[in-house]
Amino acid sequence: MTLRVAVLGIAGRLGGAIAREALSDPRFALTGGIVRSEYDGEERDIGVIAGAGRCGITASVSLEGGTANADLLIDASQPEATIAAAERLAGRGNFAFVTGVTGLDPDRKARLQAASDRLPILAARNFSLGIALMDALVRKAAAALPAGSWDAEIAETHHRHKIDAPSGTALVLGEAVAAGRNQALDDVSAIDRTGKRRPGDIGFSVTRGGGIIGEHAVRFLSDMEEITLSHAAHDRRVFARGALEAALWMSGRKPGLYSMADLVANRT
Amino acid sequence: MTLRVAVLGIAGRLGGAIAREALSDPRFALTGGIVRSEYDGEERDIGVIAGAGRCGITASVSLEGGTANADLLIDASQPEATIAAAERLAGRGNFAFVTGVTGLDPDRKARLQAASDRLPILAARNFSLGIALMDALVRKAAAALPAGSWDAEIAETHHRHKIDAPSGTALVLGEAVAAGRNQALDDVSAIDRTGKRRPGDIGFSVTRGGGIIGEHAVRFLSDMEEITLSHAAHDRRVFARGALEAALWMSGRKPGLYSMADLVANRT
Amino acid sequence: MTLRVAVLGIAGRLGGAIAREALSDPRFALTGGIVRSEYDGEERDIGVIAGAGRCGITASVSLEGGTANADLLIDASQPEATIAAAERLAGRGNFAFVTGVTGLDPDRKARLQAASDRLPILAARNFSLGIALMDALVRKAAAALPAGSWDAEIAETHHRHKIDAPSGTALVLGEAVAAGRNQALDDVSAIDRTGKRRPGDIGFSVTRGGGIIGEHAVRFLSDMEEITLSHAAHDRRVFARGALEAALWMSGRKPGLYSMADLVANRT
Amino acid sequence: MTLRVAVLGIAGRLGGAIAREALSDPRFALTGGIVRSEYDGEERDIGVIAGAGRCGITASVSLEGGTANADLLIDASQPEATIAAAERLAGRGNFAFVTGVTGLDPDRKARLQAASDRLPILAARNFSLGIALMDALVRKAAAALPAGSWDAEIAETHHRHKIDAPSGTALVLGEAVAAGRNQALDDVSAIDRTGKRRPGDIGFSVTRGGGIIGEHAVRFLSDMEEITLSHAAHDRRVFARGALEAALWMSGRKPGLYSMADLVANRT
Repeated sequence: MTLRVAVLGIAGRLGGAIAREALSDPRFALTGGIVRSEYDGEERDIGVIAGAGRCGITASVSLEGGTANADLLIDASQPEATIAAAERLAGRGNFAFVTGVTGLDPDRKARLQAASDRLPILAARNFSLGIALMDALVRKAAAALPAGSWDAEIAETHHRHKIDAPSGTALVLGEAVAAGRNQALDDVSAIDRTGKRRPGDIGFSVTRGGGIIGEHAVRFLSDMEEITLSHAAHDRRVFARGALEAALWMSGRKPGLYSMADLVANRT
Repeated sequence: MTLRVAVLGIAGRLGGAIAREALSDPRFALTGGIVRSEYDGEERDIGVIAGAGRCGITASVSLEGGTANADLLIDASQPEATIAAAERLAGRGNFAFVTGVTGLDPDRKARLQAASDRLPILAARNFSLGIALMDALVRKAAAALPAGSWDAEIAETHHRHKIDAPSGTALVLGEAVAAGRNQALDDVSAIDRTGKRRPGDIGFSVTRGGGIIGEHAVRFLSDMEEITLSHAAHDRRVFARGALEAALWMSGRKPGLYSMADLVANRT
Repeated sequence: MTLRVAVLGIAGRLGGAIAREALSDPRFALTGGIVRSEYDGEERDIGVIAGAGRCGITASVSLEGGTANADLLIDASQPEATIAAAERLAGRGNFAFVTGVTGLDPDRKARLQAASDRLPILAARNFSLGIALMDALVRKAAAALPAGSWDAEIAETHHRHKIDAPSGTALVLGEAVAAGRNQALDDVSAIDRTGKRRPGDIGFSVTRGGGIIGEHAVRFLSDMEEITLSHAAHDRRVFARGALEAALWMSGRKPGLYSMADLVANRT
Repeated sequence: MTLRVAVLGIAGRLGGAIAREALSDPRFALTGGIVRSEYDGEERDIGVIAGAGRCGITASVSLEGGTANADLLIDASQPEATIAAAERLAGRGNFAFVTGVTGLDPDRKARLQAASDRLPILAARNFSLGIALMDALVRKAAAALPAGSWDAEIAETHHRHKIDAPSGTALVLGEAVAAGRNQALDDVSAIDRTGKRRPGDIGFSVTRGGGIIGEHAVRFLSDMEEITLSHAAHDRRVFARGALEAALWMSGRKPGLYSMADLVANRT
């Protein structure tokens, strides 16, 4: 059986990558792509927009048009478009929604939650399955290793062009450590490392260079031993592929708000 | 409150290390030490036997004598002595037994299990808390990551004098991967790496050199990303300290057969 | 100034990659591509053969035809073709030859050496600049660290499909250690690691999994410290790009037999 | 033949460690130990002061007294004592001086240089042989890898109690990179990493936790590959042992100012 997928934000980097993967994977049919109403590219074929070959389907500026033949919408747009889409799709039967949008403020989070009463929604901050699993494992490790004797340190490396530091994923992993310890990350995070370590801190360190796609490590260090969980993305397509895995997993679910952690937990 | 501890096999390397740690930690009182009846050392003070200062307590060759004033026995002897001690201690009220002995055959495992009906027993293959946690995390990771798309590889490094390879702990971690996948390690382990990888193999690689106490890494590798769990022992005392942590955790428990995994799980 | 390059073996994997890089780099003009006389592909445009766009140049089966408008030939063919080309190009003025062919037997090595009396030749076993530098650094490290107190261990990781193990580059690095110690690798290499380490061994360990392009590490381990040199290829194009760097560096040189080590040494 | 060694600063941490190693190594005789005139410990036996057994030699407060029976003085004191000792020993025949003192200001550096006209002096910022070699290799790597395409990043990890960050050794390695590129570290070092990487920066990252003795890594990252040199100290005695190696190597040398780099270079 083929899952019919539409992509919101198909002219963006992640949206295009998702569309390309869907076009090359027989488990999926790409049935629609939505661009912003301001989109002024001459090209209208969604295959070409996504950087693959012509596929004969024209990009849509309307949600309804773009999703008419789809079972599921994958969203790689911006917060306001994400929420608007979720609210308009809520109540449509036999449909699911997968979003990788980050930076939702509390109000938008509440609206997404409300929409999930009538729509199955998976919201991910990072579509990598490896990161989703790492998040879950870090939480368990932090809960098992007392902060008094095990120091937690998070190191990340990204390519030379990355602007923000520490990376969003490093902060997510820091929150996982803090959650495992029943703490709030803001109370214990250490980003400036030029002073002495405060007991209980969750420390961050940042490396920038070359073309590194993304490396993250969470180290737990005691006086005598060390346990480390690390992740490396070796191919940029890992995020698009993860989004498609999430889509498959969401297909046919009941309404509710799901996360990549649920996808991973379901397998363990 | 002080936990009164006796050590079986106090003249051995691990037994002595456990005794030294107990002598230097105010949470414990070392109240006895048992040596084999063949022991012919001139020194009888258990503090000196253990490599610490004189403590005024004489080594015993009898289980009853050595444990008379103890709440718990930590065993660092050999399989037959382990089983004999467990059976003789079974039924003694308010007493617990912690053993780090490895290499029990099926018959002895059954006898240990039987003794645990009347005695709280913790049996560990490796007293490091970090390794115990890693074992649990590896199991979860292996269950979450399909063997068809994620290859599992275990690398270990030890000092130049180590004789066996792969290390016992590497094999334990390999069993954790196999268990997470509902497989038997023997069916899928790959130790000779000069040929091509068979799909589904759990691969091992061995490095020997210098004074490395023990490093273990379990890598899960997909086409596009990688998640790795690794452990390093930085101080040989980590095993003795883990044995004492296990003793504290066992104090006051009901009869039953416990493992380091239970200790770690209890914390998560 | 543009370097006019022809590629011998343009229908192969490495040859095609070199041609693609040359087509996209303004420092180079791709002026010819040579295929074997048995080549029976319908496609004759060397751009298309290389997996890039049409470039209007037809593949040649003759060395003279393919190199007519070139300043330099990059060879990614097979040993016999390599030697034949070197011998026929020897004596042509203002021309250079760069080859990445491996597995030359002693007789062919002698013929290549002889050809280099009249032709500037660079012969590389691995076109990665990082590996070339690592080779040089490993040699120096091995010379500085006495084998009696520092154990050398080489670990490599490659994707799940790789057939040979240890990798050719791991063996090259092992030869660099042996050379630094005035030894022959064959006398001291340890590939089967199930027994105890012999003093002085150069040990190898192999990991296979996922899509890893190539990771190599050379560790020197003493009782108390460790120094490690490691390399990772993050993008398969690294080899093609290294070949073009070698071509630039060879342009205008005098006859002689050069290596990637010379290129690197020249920069230090 | 036995090298007769005296230690200046024997009551300090490094001085004591050097003395203990000398006492346990048959290639050395510990013939004297010098303490500051303010030293008011009751214990005067230098073996006991150093934390080893009684050796029958009394600590001296005078340079002449402490070095009367020695061939060489190892200095683990403070800058002013270092310079005073070097100046008073200059001219004494058949004597050498090894110092691990850091933080010499330009005036003291000049005085040390002047003293070396008449005394063989080895001045080290870090007595680890591995770090000395790494320094030399990093310099060569930085010279070979153009800063325009290879980013240099230095990561270091130390125990939770360390106060300064980045470590002195990390800065030394940063200077090695800068020297290899004909730059001054101050012009290109990046310690605060919350902003975007400037092209050409030498970046630092800091991790603090557990009991880590000292780990340093220098990474060179291009768009497509990476070469890394790393060092780990596994035992605190590595610094004392390195000082004794330096002493052996200095024995019998001509006057002059030597470094650990010379010791290492001499072996390559």
